[in-house]
Order: sequence, then structure tokens, then C-alpha cells
Amino acid sequence: MFVLVNLKTYPCDPIEVAEAVRDVNESTDARVAVAPQATNIAQVAETGAETWAQHVDPIDYGSNTGHTLAETVADAGAVGTLINHSEQRLKLADIDGTVQAAERADLETVVCANNPAQIGAAAALGPDAVAVEPPELIGTGTPVSQADPDVVEDAVNAARNVDSDVSVLCGAGISTGDDVVAAGDLGAEGVLLASGVAKADDPTAALEDLVEPL
Amino acid sequence: MFVLVNLKTYPCDPIEVAEAVRDVNESTDARVAVAPQATNIAQVAETGAETWAQHVDPIDYGSNTGHTLAETVADAGAVGTLINHSEQRLKLADIDGTVQAAERADLETVVCANNPAQIGAAAALGPDAVAVEPPELIGTGTPVSQADPDVVEDAVNAARNVDSDVSVLCGAGISTGDDVVAAGDLGAEGVLLASGVAKADDPTAALEDLVEPL
Amino acid sequence: MFVLVNLKTYPCDPIEVAEAVRDVNESTDARVAVAPQATNIAQVAETGAETWAQHVDPIDYGSNTGHTLAETVADAGAVGTLINHSEQRLKLADIDGTVQAAERADLETVVCANNPAQIGAAAALGPDAVAVEPPELIGTGTPVSQADPDVVEDAVNAARNVDSDVSVLCGAGISTGDDVVAAGDLGAEGVLLASGVAKADDPTAALEDLVEPL
Amino acid sequence: MFVLVNLKTYPCDPIEVAEAVRDVNESTDARVAVAPQATNIAQVAETGAETWAQHVDPIDYGSNTGHTLAETVADAGAVGTLINHSEQRLKLADIDGTVQAAERADLETVVCANNPAQIGAAAALGPDAVAVEPPELIGTGTPVSQADPDVVEDAVNAARNVDSDVSVLCGAGISTGDDVVAAGDLGAEGVLLASGVAKADDPTAALEDLVEPL
Repeated sequence: MFVLVNLKTYPCDPIEVAEAVRDVNESTDARVAVAPQATNIAQVAETGAETWAQHVDPIDYGSNTGHTLAETVADAGAVGTLINHSEQRLKLADIDGTVQAAERADLETVVCANNPAQIGAAAALGPDAVAVEPPELIGTGTPVSQADPDVVEDAVNAARNVDSDVSVLCGAGISTGDDVVAAGDLGAEGVLLASGVAKADDPTAALEDLVEPL
Repeated sequence: MFVLVNLKTYPCDPIEVAEAVRDVNESTDARVAVAPQATNIAQVAETGAETWAQHVDPIDYGSNTGHTLAETVADAGAVGTLINHSEQRLKLADIDGTVQAAERADLETVVCANNPAQIGAAAALGPDAVAVEPPELIGTGTPVSQADPDVVEDAVNAARNVDSDVSVLCGAGISTGDDVVAAGDLGAEGVLLASGVAKADDPTAALEDLVEPL
Repeated sequence: MFVLVNLKTYPCDPIEVAEAVRDVNESTDARVAVAPQATNIAQVAETGAETWAQHVDPIDYGSNTGHTLAETVADAGAVGTLINHSEQRLKLADIDGTVQAAERADLETVVCANNPAQIGAAAALGPDAVAVEPPELIGTGTPVSQADPDVVEDAVNAARNVDSDVSVLCGAGISTGDDVVAAGDLGAEGVLLASGVAKADDPTAALEDLVEPL
Repeated sequence: MFVLVNLKTYPCDPIEVAEAVRDVNESTDARVAVAPQATNIAQVAETGAETWAQHVDPIDYGSNTGHTLAETVADAGAVGTLINHSEQRLKLADIDGTVQAAERADLETVVCANNPAQIGAAAALGPDAVAVEPPELIGTGTPVSQADPDVVEDAVNAARNVDSDVSVLCGAGISTGDDVVAAGDLGAEGVLLASGVAKADDPTAALEDLVEPL
């Protein structure tokens, strides 16, 4: 299982979480990574934790003030990027352009979407993975793998129908190891996490709990 | 073949074009329709021409100032709507929401996209049809069916791979009957037109030329 | 006082409200107008009610699929337009472009904004009027003229500081004649209304109540 | 004069330009600063150059994936931020929210705009400075201070009319010291630069040329 910890703009110490991610990653068969704010990518990557961007723009080098260039986050140490997170919804044409921009910079890609139909659409754009996150469950502490197991299975089927090479992750409300196991049982190859780890008093303990049953 | 004439915000007389659409539709096996501005839908529909909206919003009845409600354009006489035209690009989640809003109001749906990958994505959302329009050819007079035949065939295959019930149209630069025939030979079930008819001195003659070889 | 009834995409009969607006306008010193959806402008204007658009786009004639052209709504009978309503927030550059587009088509302009600072900004773009609507009060039934009188007075001062020719309206939660009188006492030259009239069982009675104390 | 070098997403070495900015700043009466991509702010700030963000979002700490938080760029060493650059146009309400977010993090603010009317609007939001950049001159090498001197003077007057405490900068096409002097003569207190320095073979020489006549 792939466990990606999204730090959003939470008031956490990105280095502390990154070190927890790095340490837990080394002690488990799961693959654990962290997605800090763009401004923090370089220092987070220096910890040795697998580092992702939360977003990159569908652009190339050039006149793009205030944009996030795939090559720049890759140079800073990111190895992948989230795309179209529910807090950063993109136009269809821009998701396509961002997948291409990320691939150009050798960034792994996870395109997020709300529901199985949109997951099928995301899979058609050829990313490495898609992630289904029902918006109504984000930040609730109610795990998608329990509250809405059908949405995970339907998302797996929707992606498989379009392109069987695209992995499916799921997110929203996941905070325990049982949630992660349940996600895997539904066909997901990974999970997106955020507040459960980023806001934990002890991120290492929170992550160890998450990967313990894997 | 389905021939949809998009009037955009061209300085044409929508009634004159609508009457041409109505008359030519009655004299050919092709299905010919017109998409005026939202403000003109009611009067265009009164001509008896098949009338489409150029866009509707992913909303329901409620507090939505300045938005276009599917039910309202349907009540005014529209029977279908374009979605995600290259001049009105939408977020993926909003294309999904708009397809659902249009279906709720019994509007037929055509989701536009730039290229075969995005066509596959659009097809995954379950519209009645998708339309591939390479942005670089729009308004050029160089027909996509001649300038870039691969993009049409690839779009047909991309849609078929995702959902074989979704029809594929194509657009950009189409202005003659030969262009329409070529589009059909590539697997398209219809074409989107705009300036070739909307800006013609004689819209009826322009439409007759278009459907003559069908 | 200017009383503008915004029908949003409410499930009301726009003709019934328009006739109420027309009739009450004739029986009072207040100026009463109605802003239906773009699709309904022509039929609403035919009632003889003063008709406004809810939004127009910062465009000219041309290739603009799914957009609302100022000239088209003017030709359909609109005499003014709301701009930048809180349910249709625009980029600063597009508010500027929309004010210019509306003036080109001889539409009167009311630029909406959230607070006094933004009202000053809106006034700097040279519209005929600005309208302050605290988002947190919209649709509440709690009138801005009572819940937050300072915001109305501060908006009047902010607009006057920038351009004393720009009128100031206010909106949000206004549903009684006393609310309108209170708005006028705070320096507003008009009010924006929506659900209080559009959703009333008897729009004429609701409007008569509103203008009775004027 | 304030000289702000915007690195956009140019394929330049941000450290090399930052060191040039730092060195030239120390050898002149002008104030010289650099705005790298968000990902590069920390390492650029470590050079000792005055460092700005190209953009921050109108948000606070919280669930904002892929956004740029004012506090985070400040913690990384930025002392100011551009807002509403023509390549990153914002809604009026978001410019207001961004100015407030930047002030909360003690970032100096420069709000960009296209023309004098929008400059007046930007000044009404209370930033430290505004910057007028006619979009048609950006990247042309034709300096605004020569091609369109009226737009600079009119912008100075528009800002002064609204709030005399707001400084006015100008940009677009500025590449020589004479351009900077001309801008100052028109009332501007600074200039925005980009390709003239960021793409120069020798950024230090380019900057020295710029500040030499000051």
C-alpha cells in the first residue's frame, strides 16, 4: 500500500512530519510519502522522506508569474504530484496539461476526483494513479472505506474499465490502520491522508498505527 | 449526420439562421440544429428549428445569480446543450455536474474536448455525445477532417474504448459538404459548425451546400 | 429609492414577478426593476417592467461560446446589469471590462462587492452604482441595514471618497419597508432584493409592503 | 527607486540572479529585490537578497491543498509579495483577501493592474503599493515609460486620488537605466522587471546598467 500524507496548509512542522514519514517508511513494507507546501519541498526532501508536490500547473518554462512549474518542484526533490485535489479543482484541459507537464519532469502523478464517473475520466488522461475522495467525507474522521465502500469499489472498476494500468487510491476520513486495510480490501492500492497525521501530537506514532496492520 | 450550428456571440441574425436551419433540416436526411445565445433561445425555438444551448451551469434551482439553469433553457425550448466548449472550459467536476444537470432537464448533451485523451475522459462522464475540436483549428477554415484526420479517428477509438454508447462529433474549420463527408468517413456521427454558416451572407445556401453530399 | 429584484435561478414565475414590479413601479415614487435569468429577459421586458441582466461578460461580438453579450441582453430589452454579484465573483480586470462592455451597449451598471474596501475599488472603475452586500447576510432575512449599519455607511463613504458620482445601493436580508427606509437613512440610494419578493406567495403584496413607507 | 526582479518560471538560476540582486543592492541607493518561484524562496532568501513572493493565496492555515500561504513564504524569508500580476489575475474579493493575508504575515504588498482605472481600484484595497503594467507591453522590450507615459502618470493620479499613502510602480518592457529614470520622472517610485535581468547572460551587469543613472 501507498500512504501519502498531505500537509495542506496546516500549521504543522513539515520537517517533523517528514522525518516521521522517512522513519516509518523504513520500518514497514508500505510505501510512505509526504506532500508539503511548495515552499517547503526542498527542505522536506532533504530529510530523505519521499516528497510530493500538492499541485503543479499545466505550464512550461516561461512567463508564468505565481505558478508552480513541474521541473522546479522536481529539482527541489519532489518525485510526484497530486493533481486536481478537491481543494484545487482544475479544468479538464488543465488536468490533461498537468499530467503531461508532470511526466515531462519525471514526476509520478495522482489525479484526484470526487466519484467513480470522474475517476474514469481521470484515468483516461493516463496518469500513474487516480484517487477517489468523496468531498463530503474529507476532514470528517469518517473513513471512506467504511462510510462509502461502494464508491471505492466503483472507482476501482471505473478506472480498470478505462485503463487497467492506472492504480486507484482512496482518501477522506482515513485515520487508522483498519481504515487502510479496508481500503486495500476494496481494491485500492493506497490512501491519501491529511489531518490524521499532520495534526497528530506524535506523527510517528500516528503513522506507525496506520501501517501496523499492513 | 448531426450538424450543429453554434452562433457564439457572432453579430448574426439568430432568427435568419434558425429559419435556414429549420428549412434545410426538413429537406435533408441530416439532422440540423442551431445553438444561439441563451438570451435568444426562446425566440429561436419558436421558429421550429431544433434549438440547443451553448452552455448550462452545474447548478439546480436556487441562489445562483448570473448562471444558466438547465431547466430554464429547456423551458424556453432548448433540447440539448454543448458543455465544455473550448471557449467555455470547465473543471472536470463541473462537467460531471453539468451533464447531470442537463439530464435532469432532459437536455441532450455534447461534451467538447481538445484531443483524444480528453475525449476519453469526457465519454467516461456519460454524456450522449462528445465532440473533438483541436483548438488550433477553430475558426481557421482548415477542416479538422482534412488537417488532422488522425485526431478524429483517435477520438472515436478513445470514446469507444470507454463507452461505446457515446457518439463522437468533430469540429473546427468545417465549412463544406466534403468536410462533413470526410468527418463521417473517419467515424464521426456529426459536426460542429460556427462561422461558416453563422457569418455566411446566405445561411440557407451555406447549409444546403453542407448537407448536399450527405 | 431604487429597488432591484434579483430572480437568481429561483423556481418562480418571472412573468408574474415582472408584472408585480411593473404595477408597483407605477404606483409609487420608488423605481422598481427586475433582473431575471438571461434566457427570460425578452419575455420579462415585454411585460413593460424595467428589466435588468444579472450578469454580462467582458466580451465583444465574436467567438465566445456560452457567454452573455451586453448588446444581446440590451437588444432583448434589458436596460442595466448587475456585475460581480457575490454568486458570480469576477476578476478585477473583468469587472473593468464588463463595465466597459455594458456602457458600450448603453446598459446601466451596478457593481456588487462584499465590504467598504471593495466598494471603493468598484467605484474606481466608474460604474453608475455600487452595491454592498455582506455575504454572511445574503438570504438570511436579517437586513444589512439593521444587522450591520456601519457597513452601509462605510460603503457610502468609501464610494464617495473615490467618485462622488457613483450611487451606493445595499443588499442582503432586506424584506420589509422598514429595512428599505433604514437603508436610505444610512445613505443608500437603493436596495437589492431577491428571495423576499421572488419567493413570496404574492409578489405584488410583498413589493407594495416594501415601497409603502417610501 | 524600488527595482523588483520577477523571475516568473524562467529557466534561469535563481541563486545567480539573487546574488546579483544582493550585490547591486549594496552598491546603489536604489532598493533592489528579487521574486523567485515559491519553491525557491528559502534558498534565494539565504543569499541575503531581499526576497519577494510572486503570489500568495487569500487563505489562512487550514485545508488548502496546493495553495501558497502568506505565513509560509514569510517563514521562508520573503518580505513581500506581488498580487494580481497579469499572469495571475484574481477576483476582486480575492485581491482584498490576499492583501489582508499578506499583512497578517507582515509581507509588503504590491497589487498589479492593467490600467489607471484598475490602479485606482487596487489602491482602494489598502496595499503598500500598486504597479501598472499594460499587458500589451509585457515582454516586448518596449518600455511603458516611453511607449505609454500617460498610463504611468494617470496611474499615479488615480492612486493618489484614492489613497495618497499608496506608492505606484510601473512595469512592462523596462530594460535600461533610462527606462527607470523615465519611470521616476513620471511619478513612479519603482519598477517591475523580469526578462531583462532574469534572462541576461550577466544579471549583475544588467542590474548595474539599470541602477547606474539613479
